[in-house]
Amino acid sequence: MHEASEKPAVVLLSGGLDSATVLAIARAAGHKVHALSFRYGQRHAFELEAAALVARRHGAAEHLVANLALDLFGGSALTDPELAVPHGRSDAQMSAGVPITYVPARNTIFLAHALALAEVRGATDIFIGVNAIDYSGYPDCRPEYIAAFERVGQLATRAGIEGGALRIHAPLQHMSKADIIRAGLALGVDYGVTHSCYDPAPDGAACGSCDACQLRLKGFAEVGVPDPARYVRA
Amino acid sequence: MHEASEKPAVVLLSGGLDSATVLAIARAAGHKVHALSFRYGQRHAFELEAAALVARRHGAAEHLVANLALDLFGGSALTDPELAVPHGRSDAQMSAGVPITYVPARNTIFLAHALALAEVRGATDIFIGVNAIDYSGYPDCRPEYIAAFERVGQLATRAGIEGGALRIHAPLQHMSKADIIRAGLALGVDYGVTHSCYDPAPDGAACGSCDACQLRLKGFAEVGVPDPARYVRA
Repeated sequence: MHEASEKPAVVLLSGGLDSATVLAIARAAGHKVHALSFRYGQRHAFELEAAALVARRHGAAEHLVANLALDLFGGSALTDPELAVPHGRSDAQMSAGVPITYVPARNTIFLAHALALAEVRGATDIFIGVNAIDYSGYPDCRPEYIAAFERVGQLATRAGIEGGALRIHAPLQHMSKADIIRAGLALGVDYGVTHSCYDPAPDGAACGSCDACQLRLKGFAEVGVPDPARYVRA
Repeated sequence: MHEASEKPAVVLLSGGLDSATVLAIARAAGHKVHALSFRYGQRHAFELEAAALVARRHGAAEHLVANLALDLFGGSALTDPELAVPHGRSDAQMSAGVPITYVPARNTIFLAHALALAEVRGATDIFIGVNAIDYSGYPDCRPEYIAAFERVGQLATRAGIEGGALRIHAPLQHMSKADIIRAGLALGVDYGVTHSCYDPAPDGAACGSCDACQLRLKGFAEVGVPDPARYVRA
C-alpha cells in the first residue's frame, strides 16, 4: 500500500502479546501507525524494549514513549515496590475481583495521551488491546468503559467542536487469549519479541507464574504451538 | 469542621485564579482537599510556585505535582517554543475558534490523573475550574465534555465495577470572570498569590496582554477592585 494513502491511527503499544497483535491488525487494516508507549514506574520496564522491537518489526511509522508518574499514586503491585506481584494463582483466584496488579485509572491515562497524539497527527482512530475475557477483573477493560471514553474523545478535541468522528478500536475485546494468538500468527506477529510478564527476572526472562504469564502460556497451549518467549524455568 | 469527618475530594490546581477559587469552594463545601498540579513543559512554570502557595494558604491537606510529557506532542503555544503566545487580541479574536494556547487533550489527561488520585484516596468527588464562558474556544471546557468524562470516571475504577458514584464538579462552568472573582473574594481567596499569565517575564511578572491576562484584568475591572497580581507594565 502506498504510504501517502494510509489513514493515520494511534496504537497503544505495551510490548506485550495483546498490543503487538493490535498493531498487526491496525497495519492490516491499512493504517499508518503512530505507536505510543509509556514509562510509568512499572517494574517490568523490559516491556519498553519489547515495544520498540515490535514497533520496528511490524511497520509502525513512529514510536513515542511518554513518561508518566503513576508511581506517585501507588495502589498497584505494578508500580509500588511495597506490594508483591502474586504468583501461581488459580483461575478462580484470577477471576475474583480487581487484581492487585490493576493500576488506578491506567487505561484512562493511556487513552488520554493517545487522544493528544491522535489530535496532533490528524488521526481519528485509536487502537487499544484491552480484553474483556482474560482481564474481566479490570474495570477499565470493559466494553462500556471503552464506549464511554470514545464519547469523551469525540468531544474533547478541536475536531470535537464540530462533532468528531473519533473511534476507539478494541479488536481483542471479546477474543480469548488463544484466539488472539491465532489471529496474530496469521498476521505474521513475532511473539518472540513480545514481553508479558509482570515480574521478570533481572535479565528480562519471564517468571511463568504471574497472572500475565499464566494466561499467555495457557493461550499458546490451547493453540498448540510453543511460546517463543524466554522463561526462567523453561 | 473536624478533619476526620471531611469527605475527601481531588482538586485540580493550576495556581491560576480559577482553580484557586475552586479550591476555596471545595473547602467551603467541607471537603478534605487533595490538590493535584502538573509540570507539563508549560512555559509558565511560575504557575507551580503559585499552586504550592495557594494549596498551603487555603488549607489543602496534600499537594501533589505530577510530571507529564505533553511537550512530546507539541501543537500548543503553551508547550512548543516554536509557537508564539498571542498578545493584545480583541474580544472577537479571542472568541473565534480554538486558540493556539489550547493544549491537545489536556483536560482529559488532567482528569485522568485526578481519577487515579481519587481512587487511591477513596474520593468520589473531583473539582476542576473549567469555564464555558471565558474559554468558549476550548473544546474540553464544555459542559457536555465534562458530563462525558464523568461517565468514564464512573466506569473506570474499582468503585466503577459496582457502578461508581464519581462526580466531576465544575462550579465555575457558567460564571463570568467577574462572578468568579466575587465568589473567591467572599471566600477569602488571596488572588495576590495566584498566577494566570501565559507568557510571564523571567521574574514571573504577568505580561498583561495575553488572553489569560486580559480576561483576568477585565474581570477585576468589572468587580471594581484592583488585581493584586504583579504585572510587568503595572
